[in-house]
Amino acid sequence: MSSAFRPTPASLPPQNAGLMLRQPNGLPANFQPLNPLQFILRAAEVYPDKLALVHPDVKYPVSYSFAVWCQRIQNLAYALIQAGIKPGDRVAVIAPNSPLIADAHHGVLAAQAVPCPINTRLKPSEVAYILEHSGSSIILVDHEYVHLLPPNLKVRVIVSNDTGRPGDPYEDFLSSGRAFSQERGWAGLEYTTDENAPATLCYTSGTTGRPKGVVTTLRGSYLAAVANAYESKIHLESTYLWILPMFHAAGWTFPWANVFAFATQITLRTVDYSLIWKHFLNSAVTHYCGAPTVQIGIVNDPAAKRLPRPISAIIAGAAPTASLIASLEEIGIQPIHRDGRHQLHLSAGRLQVYLQYGPFTRNFTQPSWASLSAQERSKFMARQGHPFATAQDARVVYPPEDGSDTLVDVPRDGKTVGEIVTRGNIVMKEYFRDPEATAKAFRGGSFNTGDLAVWHPDGAVAVVDRSKDIIISGGENASSLAIEQELASHPCVLEVSVVARNHVKWGERPHAFVILRPKSIAKWKGRHEDFEKDLKAHAKGRLPGFACPEWVQVVDELPKTSTGKILKVDLRKIVAKL
Amino acid sequence: MSSAFRPTPASLPPQNAGLMLRQPNGLPANFQPLNPLQFILRAAEVYPDKLALVHPDVKYPVSYSFAVWCQRIQNLAYALIQAGIKPGDRVAVIAPNSPLIADAHHGVLAAQAVPCPINTRLKPSEVAYILEHSGSSIILVDHEYVHLLPPNLKVRVIVSNDTGRPGDPYEDFLSSGRAFSQERGWAGLEYTTDENAPATLCYTSGTTGRPKGVVTTLRGSYLAAVANAYESKIHLESTYLWILPMFHAAGWTFPWANVFAFATQITLRTVDYSLIWKHFLNSAVTHYCGAPTVQIGIVNDPAAKRLPRPISAIIAGAAPTASLIASLEEIGIQPIHRDGRHQLHLSAGRLQVYLQYGPFTRNFTQPSWASLSAQERSKFMARQGHPFATAQDARVVYPPEDGSDTLVDVPRDGKTVGEIVTRGNIVMKEYFRDPEATAKAFRGGSFNTGDLAVWHPDGAVAVVDRSKDIIISGGENASSLAIEQELASHPCVLEVSVVARNHVKWGERPHAFVILRPKSIAKWKGRHEDFEKDLKAHAKGRLPGFACPEWVQVVDELPKTSTGKILKVDLRKIVAKL
Repeated sequence: MSSAFRPTPASLPPQNAGLMLRQPNGLPANFQPLNPLQFILRAAEVYPDKLALVHPDVKYPVSYSFAVWCQRIQNLAYALIQAGIKPGDRVAVIAPNSPLIADAHHGVLAAQAVPCPINTRLKPSEVAYILEHSGSSIILVDHEYVHLLPPNLKVRVIVSNDTGRPGDPYEDFLSSGRAFSQERGWAGLEYTTDENAPATLCYTSGTTGRPKGVVTTLRGSYLAAVANAYESKIHLESTYLWILPMFHAAGWTFPWANVFAFATQITLRTVDYSLIWKHFLNSAVTHYCGAPTVQIGIVNDPAAKRLPRPISAIIAGAAPTASLIASLEEIGIQPIHRDGRHQLHLSAGRLQVYLQYGPFTRNFTQPSWASLSAQERSKFMARQGHPFATAQDARVVYPPEDGSDTLVDVPRDGKTVGEIVTRGNIVMKEYFRDPEATAKAFRGGSFNTGDLAVWHPDGAVAVVDRSKDIIISGGENASSLAIEQELASHPCVLEVSVVARNHVKWGERPHAFVILRPKSIAKWKGRHEDFEKDLKAHAKGRLPGFACPEWVQVVDELPKTSTGKILKVDLRKIVAKL
Repeated sequence: MSSAFRPTPASLPPQNAGLMLRQPNGLPANFQPLNPLQFILRAAEVYPDKLALVHPDVKYPVSYSFAVWCQRIQNLAYALIQAGIKPGDRVAVIAPNSPLIADAHHGVLAAQAVPCPINTRLKPSEVAYILEHSGSSIILVDHEYVHLLPPNLKVRVIVSNDTGRPGDPYEDFLSSGRAFSQERGWAGLEYTTDENAPATLCYTSGTTGRPKGVVTTLRGSYLAAVANAYESKIHLESTYLWILPMFHAAGWTFPWANVFAFATQITLRTVDYSLIWKHFLNSAVTHYCGAPTVQIGIVNDPAAKRLPRPISAIIAGAAPTASLIASLEEIGIQPIHRDGRHQLHLSAGRLQVYLQYGPFTRNFTQPSWASLSAQERSKFMARQGHPFATAQDARVVYPPEDGSDTLVDVPRDGKTVGEIVTRGNIVMKEYFRDPEATAKAFRGGSFNTGDLAVWHPDGAVAVVDRSKDIIISGGENASSLAIEQELASHPCVLEVSVVARNHVKWGERPHAFVILRPKSIAKWKGRHEDFEKDLKAHAKGRLPGFACPEWVQVVDELPKTSTGKILKVDLRKIVAKL
C-alpha cells in the first residue's frame, strides 16, 4: 500500500455528517422499505474508521474507511442526479473489480437509479446491444474497457483511470457531486418507497440468442445479502477477497453482504492466482466466491499450499465436482470441525446464476457425513442442497405438458430427472422489456430455471445438467455433469468437460475434453491414445455403458466465459465439425 | 434424560411428509410474505433428525428432533382449527418455559392465529383482564398455572401436564389435531398472505395503569429473528438455554431465531441458578438471554466458576451496570478475541422491552476499546449502542412541545438528555384495541419509547433512565441509572436500586437500596451506618453532589417482576412512607 495515498478532499465527510436518508412521507413508523443501501449508512455510523475497501495491486493503490467510502457513495449519487439521472434510470457500469464498480452498487441506488453492470469480456457488439436495450442514461467505464464502447454514443460517459487521485475523470465526477450537493448530505436524498422497485439489471451471457436483462428488486437484494452474510458467517472480523467479478450477477449480492457484515473487501482487477495466493497467505482473507473453474486454478497454482487458517469458499456458477471439493479440503479450504467452536464451512455446490441474486440453495453438511471418507463426503457436498436462509422453495418438477401450466413434483428418489423451479423473495422480478420471456420463465407460477436435477430423499436437489447439456444416448438420458464428476476423479485429470456428439448408431454419445494435470502431462506425452484407454477403463467401472465417453480429447485449455464458466456451446461447435 | 421417553404416536411424522404450506393464490413467484413460521419447516426439511427441543429437568423429560417437533406444531395448528380458531383469533398461552409455549410460537401461527403469551407471575385479576381484553378464543395453560384462570370461563381451556406422554390433556389435544387433519399435512394449511398481519400479542407489565397489548407483525418478527441469529452468531452448532421466560415479549423473537439457525433449545421451567450452572458446564450451552438481575444471580451463584468455553449472553430488559459486565467477563461470559477465528461476543447493553420484539440496538465493540481496562471498557459496553442488523433508526430527541409533532434531535454530545424514538420494521404495529395509546406512542411519526437517553458523538445511544426514574434534586436532573452504575462499583455491593425520595430542601434526593455481596455481609453486620458512610464516600468521588445518595438502606432482597426487573414502583411506595 502506497503511503502516499490520501483520499481526495471531496471524499472526506464533514464533521458530524448525518447518516440518515430523508424519510418518505406517509410511511408508518413500523414499516421501512427493505433496501441494501441501508447497510453502508449503518457501517459508516457504527464503524466509521474501519477499513472498508482496499484496492492494492495496482499502480495507484487506494483504501477507504467506511466513513470515507460512504461519503464517496453519496458524492456519486449527487453527481448522477446532477447529470440528469432520475429514479428508475439505468446506469451502465463497465469495470473489473475496483472501487468504481463497488461504489456503483451503493451510489446508484442512492440516486434511486438501477446499476447495470456489464461483463467486461463481451464483444463491442454485445456491449452495444446491452447499452441500447437497457436504455442506460449514463456510462461509468474503467479506462481499460473504453474500447468496448460503441462510437457516436448519445449518453454521457465517465471514465475512471482507477487512480483515486484528483485529476482522474471519475474523481472529478465525484467531486462535482459533492459540490452539487451543497452539503445537504444524506438528508438531501430520499429513501425509495417501493421495496419491490428494481435494484439491478444484469444481462445473461446469452450463449444462445440475445442476452436477457434480469431485473432484481431492492427487497430481494436486501434479503439475499443478509442471508449470504449469515450463511457464509461473514462478520466484522472477516476479510473478503474479490475474485468473482462484481459485474457477474451483481457479485451474487456480496457487494452488500460484506457491508452489512462490516467486513473488509479487497478488490482484484483480474483473476491472478499469484495475487490470490499472496492475499490468502498475507492479508487475513477469510472468504471468497468463485466458480468451480476458478477453484481449480486456485488449487493447482504452484503457490498452493496448506493454509495456516481455513478460508471459506462460496462455490457457485456451476456444479463443483466431488474431486475438486476433496482437493480444496486438502489445503484447508474446507469444513473444520474442532470442538464445535471454530467452524468455518465450505458452502459448496450452491445453485446459482439463473436467479442473478447469487446463491439460492446451499449444501447443508450433515453430522452423519463426518464418518465418510473425503471422497465420499465430497459427493454429498457436490449436491446443490436445500434453499438457504431467506430463499423459499426449490422443487424439482416434470416438464409441464403442452397446454398445461401445472407443475408436478418428481418423486424424491434421487433418480428421476426434472427441472428445478423456485419461488420466494430472492427470485428475479422479470426480464427487462421482455414480457414474453418473463411469462415463459414464470410458467406455472414458479421460476423455471432450465436446470435439470434429481430430488434426493432427504430433500436436497442435485443438478444433473442444463437441459441442453443432457446427452441422449440410445434413448437413455446421460447427464454430462455426472460423467464429468466421474472422469474428474481420475488422478491425471485437471479439468474435464463433456458434450454430446452425433453418433450413427446411438444418436448421441459423450465426447470428453480433458486438460491433464501439469504433473501428468509428461507421463502421457505422445501417448494420448493410451490415456484415452485408461480414462475409458476408469469410466467403465463407474458409469453405465451409455454414459461412458466414446471419445476422449486431450486439450491445453477449455473455452470459458469471463466468469470461468466453460462455454459448452463452443465445444459443441467443435464436435459438430468432427 | 429418561430413556423411557418416546414421542406420542401422533408426534411421529408420516414417511415423506411434505414440508410446504399451500401457496396462496395470486402471489407472484418472486414475492413471499415474510413469516417466521417458515423456519421450522425448513429446519425439519434440512435437519430432520437434529435435536431441536429438550426439556430435561422435570419429572417427565422430553426431547424432540426437528422432524418430530414440526409434526407436533402441525398437529397443534389443526387442533386449534378444529377447535374453531379462525385467522386473526388470539390464543392465550400461560406457561413457563416448556414445550407447550415453544410449540405455540409456531403452531398458533400455522393456524394463522395470534399467540398471546401471558406472564405467569401476574395476579388472577390481571390475567382475567388480559384474557378479556385480548378476546382470546382458547387458552393453553400449564398445569401449575391453572389457578390463575378466572372462574366461569366461556372459552375452551387446554391444560398441559408437561409430560409429553399420552393421557396428558395437551397431548390428547395434539393427537386430535392429527386425526382431524386426515394427513393433509402442511399442504392443508395456507400461508398468511399479509406479512404485516399480527404475529404476537404481548401485554406490558402495566406498572402504572392497565397493561397494554403490544401487537407485532409477521414481517417484523421474521426480520428481528434473522437479525438476532446473525448478531448473536447462533448457528447449527449452537445450544440455547432458555432462562429468559418465553412469555416475555415472545422471548425476544429467540423462539424463532434459534429455529432459523437450526440450534438446539433447552427449556428451564424456572430461573434456578444451580440448573443453569449444570447446563453451562455439562450441556454445551453457547447462548442465553437474561435481564441484568438474572445475570447478577448467575455471576454470584456458589457454583459460578470460570467457564471452560465462553458463552454468549444477550443482556436486555434493563441497562446492565459496568460492574456487572466486568464480573461476567471475569468468568468467561465475555468477548473473546483470540486470533480472529473463535470469537464469541457479549452482546451487552441492548435496548429492549418497549418494542416487544426484543433487541433493537446493540453495543458494537470498537477496536480502540481493546487497550482499555476491563472497568473502562465495561462503561462503553454498558451503552445501548446503535440500531442492530435489521432495525432502522434510533434517535434521541427533545420532548416535543405541546401542540407540536416535530421531533428535534438532541446534539450528539453525550450530555443532553432526550427521549429515544425509533423507526423501522421491528417497531411494534400498535397497541391492541387502543387507538388513543397507539396515536400517542407514534406521535411525530416515530415510536416514542419513554426511555431517556443521551446521544454520544459516535452515534451510540445510552439510556439514562425511564422518564419516571429521573431524580430532580435541587433543580438538577439526576439519573438513577447513572447513580446505580457508580454505586455498583463498590466492592461490597451485589445489587443496588436508587429512587427519588422527597426532601424538604432539595425537592428530591436519591435513596439507595443495596444488597450486600454474600462475602461482605459479615463484614458490615451490625454496622450498616458505617457501610452507608463508606458507600457515600465512594459516591462522592464519582458523582456530582446533587446525585450522591442522601440515604442508603441495606436490604436482603429487592422487589422484582417475574422477568427480573426491579419494581421501582414498589421501592417508591416504601420511601413515600418514610
